[in-house]
Amino acid sequence: MKQVQIGIMGLGTVGGGVYSVLKRNQAEIVRRAGCSIAVTMVSRRDVAKAKALVGDDAAVVADARAIIANPAIDIVVELIGGYDLAKTLVLEAIAAGKHVVTANKALLAVHGEEIFATAKAANNGQGVMVAYEAAVAGGIPIIKALREGLSANRIEWVAGIINGTTNFILSEMRDKGLDFATVLKEAQALGYAEADPTFDIEGVDAAHKASLLSAIAFGTQPQFNTAYQNGHIEGISQLAAQDITYAEQLGYRIKLLGISKRTDKGIELRVHPTLIPAKRLIANVEGAMNAVLVKADAVGATLYYGKGAGSEPTASAVIADIVDVVRSMNVPAANRVPALAFQDNALETLPIVAMKDVVTSYYLRIPVVDEPGVLAQVATILANARISIDALLQRESEDSAEGEARTDIIVLTHEAREGDMVGALAKIKALTFTRGAVAMLRKEDLA
Amino acid sequence: MKQVQIGIMGLGTVGGGVYSVLKRNQAEIVRRAGCSIAVTMVSRRDVAKAKALVGDDAAVVADARAIIANPAIDIVVELIGGYDLAKTLVLEAIAAGKHVVTANKALLAVHGEEIFATAKAANNGQGVMVAYEAAVAGGIPIIKALREGLSANRIEWVAGIINGTTNFILSEMRDKGLDFATVLKEAQALGYAEADPTFDIEGVDAAHKASLLSAIAFGTQPQFNTAYQNGHIEGISQLAAQDITYAEQLGYRIKLLGISKRTDKGIELRVHPTLIPAKRLIANVEGAMNAVLVKADAVGATLYYGKGAGSEPTASAVIADIVDVVRSMNVPAANRVPALAFQDNALETLPIVAMKDVVTSYYLRIPVVDEPGVLAQVATILANARISIDALLQRESEDSAEGEARTDIIVLTHEAREGDMVGALAKIKALTFTRGAVAMLRKEDLA
Repeated sequence: MKQVQIGIMGLGTVGGGVYSVLKRNQAEIVRRAGCSIAVTMVSRRDVAKAKALVGDDAAVVADARAIIANPAIDIVVELIGGYDLAKTLVLEAIAAGKHVVTANKALLAVHGEEIFATAKAANNGQGVMVAYEAAVAGGIPIIKALREGLSANRIEWVAGIINGTTNFILSEMRDKGLDFATVLKEAQALGYAEADPTFDIEGVDAAHKASLLSAIAFGTQPQFNTAYQNGHIEGISQLAAQDITYAEQLGYRIKLLGISKRTDKGIELRVHPTLIPAKRLIANVEGAMNAVLVKADAVGATLYYGKGAGSEPTASAVIADIVDVVRSMNVPAANRVPALAFQDNALETLPIVAMKDVVTSYYLRIPVVDEPGVLAQVATILANARISIDALLQRESEDSAEGEARTDIIVLTHEAREGDMVGALAKIKALTFTRGAVAMLRKEDLA
Repeated sequence: MKQVQIGIMGLGTVGGGVYSVLKRNQAEIVRRAGCSIAVTMVSRRDVAKAKALVGDDAAVVADARAIIANPAIDIVVELIGGYDLAKTLVLEAIAAGKHVVTANKALLAVHGEEIFATAKAANNGQGVMVAYEAAVAGGIPIIKALREGLSANRIEWVAGIINGTTNFILSEMRDKGLDFATVLKEAQALGYAEADPTFDIEGVDAAHKASLLSAIAFGTQPQFNTAYQNGHIEGISQLAAQDITYAEQLGYRIKLLGISKRTDKGIELRVHPTLIPAKRLIANVEGAMNAVLVKADAVGATLYYGKGAGSEPTASAVIADIVDVVRSMNVPAANRVPALAFQDNALETLPIVAMKDVVTSYYLRIPVVDEPGVLAQVATILANARISIDALLQRESEDSAEGEARTDIIVLTHEAREGDMVGALAKIKALTFTRGAVAMLRKEDLA
């Protein structure tokens, strides 16, 4: 039986998972793939650590380029991460005619266009595959669902809980009523958040993934760079515990969503904490779990749920890609699933809608001095901006340290243009009775 | 550009959806598939009705065999349903070298082995494809997820809400506190249940689908016939409204699940109303929606949710299959995804575990006369059968028409062998203080 040889560049947590799962489930995978698939070469700067894992099963090298140079290697798995070295090595692997499987969302979100174009032209025009199921939502086969399972549909929007760290933090904040900083420390202690958690908590990781989902939903290049300029990336570090509580009282949960939506003006590509009706399934995704909700014209809403990170869940996606690549490596490029779901000559250039032109509904928390006319003035400002109030909550006031009777006015609005809302908010902030920061969160119905 | 020609046998609700969605989304589908896909021939006994839908876009025939005889047709879509005519036509289409896409779970669950074997040998040994994403859970790409997305994994079990009619009925019974018969009539009036609802409410439809999920999860032939003999198919027509209420009080929801589980003794293949912890996402799947939960060794639990029936959701799955077939029709059979997920020479024969040997946990409702020693006797019988009690609920008694003080004893057990439970139940039923039928339901943790 033919054996397909895999080289893993960067044998860390995920690479170890790929190696272990391929070995443990070899018989089951052979039954499916019809051929043997083995990791025969791995790279890691710390060669001894790699040897401790793979023993004599695979050659261990310090320099990943030795894998690319090995003519016996059919598929290179890139698990180094980041933009620089990973990009260079992926391009070199492609140039050497290797198929590539990667979990690197940052790389593809930023440099996907160049990488996919290079892969298409490689191998004397026969092309090589660059597969990336593991780049979004770990073990959930969401890339496959969007690229193949929903191919009959015109996709309307994709909304995903695609960062486990932030979902863990939000779940803990809600369950235990703790504030962000406290829960972040707990998450770091438990290994759910990194020492430098910036990419996760500020929404950058989710934005990388959302750019990829957006590209394959609508047939564009990954637009992370454009989204950073014109779209909107907002994390959870500024989210106040009290807003989670108020949202709960109004029947909503707050989740960090990566949203990509097709509109007449282009694509909305945005990452931000979002109020979701508590009855939606996706509002009940807790802890470090991921879920992606897709709205499409024929099938309606479908949801995909599972572990979005971790050694073996991510390995599950990497190996599924390997099996797919094995099946398609000897067929003409035209018979392969296109890298970005759409034929590369059918990709479109769609503008990213500027955040001020996004239309959504809003949650506002306005800390005020509780005096006559306050509500009337807030309502008037919103009405003048043609923003319609959907629900309103005002608690009995409490005395502040300054001896003022203070309360929060909580407003849920109907749909409004973000530019109008921001304008109205500036006026509300300038009112004489407003005290401290006004919180503004976006709300999505996801029906 | 090459045009792939589709013939639809049985242009009813789903066929109309396939025709409409293919036409409406033609541009989007061409962008993905790289070629044009058009329905050029349809069959329906009532030719006028078919013509009213397709106009001059497709040839309309009364006899589906005219589609099979048409050499221009590449792919035949079978939407006739049932076992007899559909089987004959599918086998004839295969013999004519056509690829087949079908939504017919009954056909494949019962005759899958013969149909897949015939398809493999067809076309002078090159084989034709028989695709069936639409046969399970409508528009949810669960066949693709199991066959391809989770190919790295050893699947442990699959548990699905795969019949929308019964899930709608159970949701209504719970929401409105109504009994089965009342809600069934409502479901029939709304079109959620058929005039003869037997296949749905008695679990047969779910069992057809569960047999297919089981086959592709574990690599066996579809075993519906064996399951009918050795496994267990139980619907919801005997489910009492009060058991839904008691389950709720104990923190559970009752769902009709199709379960397939790999055990040391073989495969458990069973369909029955099941208590599920209310906090599980799948317990919150309401109305006619479907969801399938898969537990696999590397990825853990993943869930797939969406519409399980209806014209366009089902069409979404049929067309996704068509696009897949288009991509693979000109590649060698070895490069195609195997029909049953595993290479046909790697399929195993695994026994279906007899229901008496199934190990699960249980919910019991024992209507009793409220007198001293009742609980002790019930507990003793369970203890003697080595069945351990997990939770117990006994309400204050009420006087019956006969002037007896009666109550229900509700027992949740830990895991037990079904044979032991049935033996213990017979003894409990025979106790002098037991009044009326004892309800026994199975409980699954689905963690």
